[in-house]
Amino acid sequence: MGLGLIGGSLLRRLGATGGACGYDADPAARAAAVEAGLRSVPTVEDAVSAADVVFLAAPLPAFAQLVPAVAKATRPGTLISDVASVKVAPRELVRTHANGLRYVGGHPMAGTERSGFAASDAHLFDGAAWVLCLDPDTDLGAWLELARLVTGLGCRVVPTTAEEHDGAVARISHLPHLLADALAAGAHDNLARKLAAGSFRDGTRVAGTRPDLVTAMCDGNREAVLDALDGLLARLAEARDALRAGDSVRPLAEEGYAARQRWVGFGMGGSTVELDARAATLRADLLRLGRSGGHLDEVGDGVLLGWRPAP
Amino acid sequence: MGLGLIGGSLLRRLGATGGACGYDADPAARAAAVEAGLRSVPTVEDAVSAADVVFLAAPLPAFAQLVPAVAKATRPGTLISDVASVKVAPRELVRTHANGLRYVGGHPMAGTERSGFAASDAHLFDGAAWVLCLDPDTDLGAWLELARLVTGLGCRVVPTTAEEHDGAVARISHLPHLLADALAAGAHDNLARKLAAGSFRDGTRVAGTRPDLVTAMCDGNREAVLDALDGLLARLAEARDALRAGDSVRPLAEEGYAARQRWVGFGMGGSTVELDARAATLRADLLRLGRSGGHLDEVGDGVLLGWRPAP
Repeated sequence: MGLGLIGGSLLRRLGATGGACGYDADPAARAAAVEAGLRSVPTVEDAVSAADVVFLAAPLPAFAQLVPAVAKATRPGTLISDVASVKVAPRELVRTHANGLRYVGGHPMAGTERSGFAASDAHLFDGAAWVLCLDPDTDLGAWLELARLVTGLGCRVVPTTAEEHDGAVARISHLPHLLADALAAGAHDNLARKLAAGSFRDGTRVAGTRPDLVTAMCDGNREAVLDALDGLLARLAEARDALRAGDSVRPLAEEGYAARQRWVGFGMGGSTVELDARAATLRADLLRLGRSGGHLDEVGDGVLLGWRPAP
Repeated sequence: MGLGLIGGSLLRRLGATGGACGYDADPAARAAAVEAGLRSVPTVEDAVSAADVVFLAAPLPAFAQLVPAVAKATRPGTLISDVASVKVAPRELVRTHANGLRYVGGHPMAGTERSGFAASDAHLFDGAAWVLCLDPDTDLGAWLELARLVTGLGCRVVPTTAEEHDGAVARISHLPHLLADALAAGAHDNLARKLAAGSFRDGTRVAGTRPDLVTAMCDGNREAVLDALDGLLARLAEARDALRAGDSVRPLAEEGYAARQRWVGFGMGGSTVELDARAATLRADLLRLGRSGGHLDEVGDGVLLGWRPAP
């Protein structure tokens, strides 16, 4: 449901295995999908009435209308997921508009500053981390079913809660967009535009994201983005105060360097993990795996195979 | 003088045309240059006593010692330039420690997050903008001599003042480093490190710059960085206040998108410029060219050839 960058790429990926069809409110997007050799249908009902799994890939503001329409048209038992870049807000919309759906929130950590079906790519998700939310009220069977499908696409499934996800992405994805925008706005004269080079280019790359998308992701993750912004403003204000007092930015430069090195090295050491699919502790085991920075690569009937970083 | 990324690359570039030699306080850097087939010498005096042009490429904190040593060892008339990423501070050091030098401040707008001679590259400056400061007390003849040398390296010479340069680079180069550091520091748990992808990678790339270099460039450009930081903090605080009030980040997202698009399009349209090298207004003509976002490509005896962006 939705044939933008993520929905279009998912349809391209699933279309290759047959049986998948896509829907978009925009007839031009549907036509583009057909032209690319994929199947698209003209109504929500056509798309979901016979579906086993439905991915909601529309922009978050469209969910309030889309979720009840999908809920009305699906058979009982259909698995509903989404690919929105925030996870608390869509979960709350599902609870409000269609409580009782077999819903598992998801977020593939893949994207570019380009958007729309024209930017879609069957390989967008190759090797990507794909968050699947295991909240207290998530049906574990539905979660495992979706985890099997997503690992089958070659993705690494990260189990976490909607709240933990939203806090993390506020800091590592939504904040970078706002910073890129603020940085870009500072190049307001031709001398600055002329001299801007690598550090400006990279620091502002995601300012090329459509303002609608940035607005939807940040406004849709209000509390977590506020927390993240407050933390960042405090760090920068500390550096500003130090400079003003004739002191140095060195503490920030050293903290940032160490954090970046730690991130670059993340995932270099680690070990495989086997979880017992029938263990009574499976839910807690999965959440601990996600919190440690680990993921699942394969979901079998008896055993889940994954990876955990070195401590 | 100095065989780090910039000094080493400059020696590689000039070494290819013969006659250039390099110096570094660190014997290992001098040995690395020799191993790369270049000439290096063990003392400041050996390096500059017979030189026509001297480039100071040491870190700014070393200038207070280096400038008097170079001034003492050069012949009268030797042209002294530097490649520091700030321009007011080295100019003040030259005025204090070696007034009367034929000094023209410069800044090649090229670099990577790597540093040291090992990262140097003869092609680092290909097509790069290279700022040359034309301050009220800069000797115009010395400026033109250096501009001829730098355009001869294939660089685009941007005429500006030290103050205008420092204000622009604070916004388009020093701020990106501080933002990258603050952003990197926000990924302080393994779930965040795991989910961090393209926007985090690009937004934090220059946090991989050695903290010494970031400290030197920001502390060395204190007033301009303070101005730039204040402007950025105000922009971000406005977005934070809007979010907190239940409003949207949309104004920032739209401003950033428009600014990024304008930057991406900068330089796509423009026209060649000819300046009369003998005009009484040459100094003002050059500064106006720099302020408009233009540059010089070629410095002849009678005419200077350059480029100016479309208005």
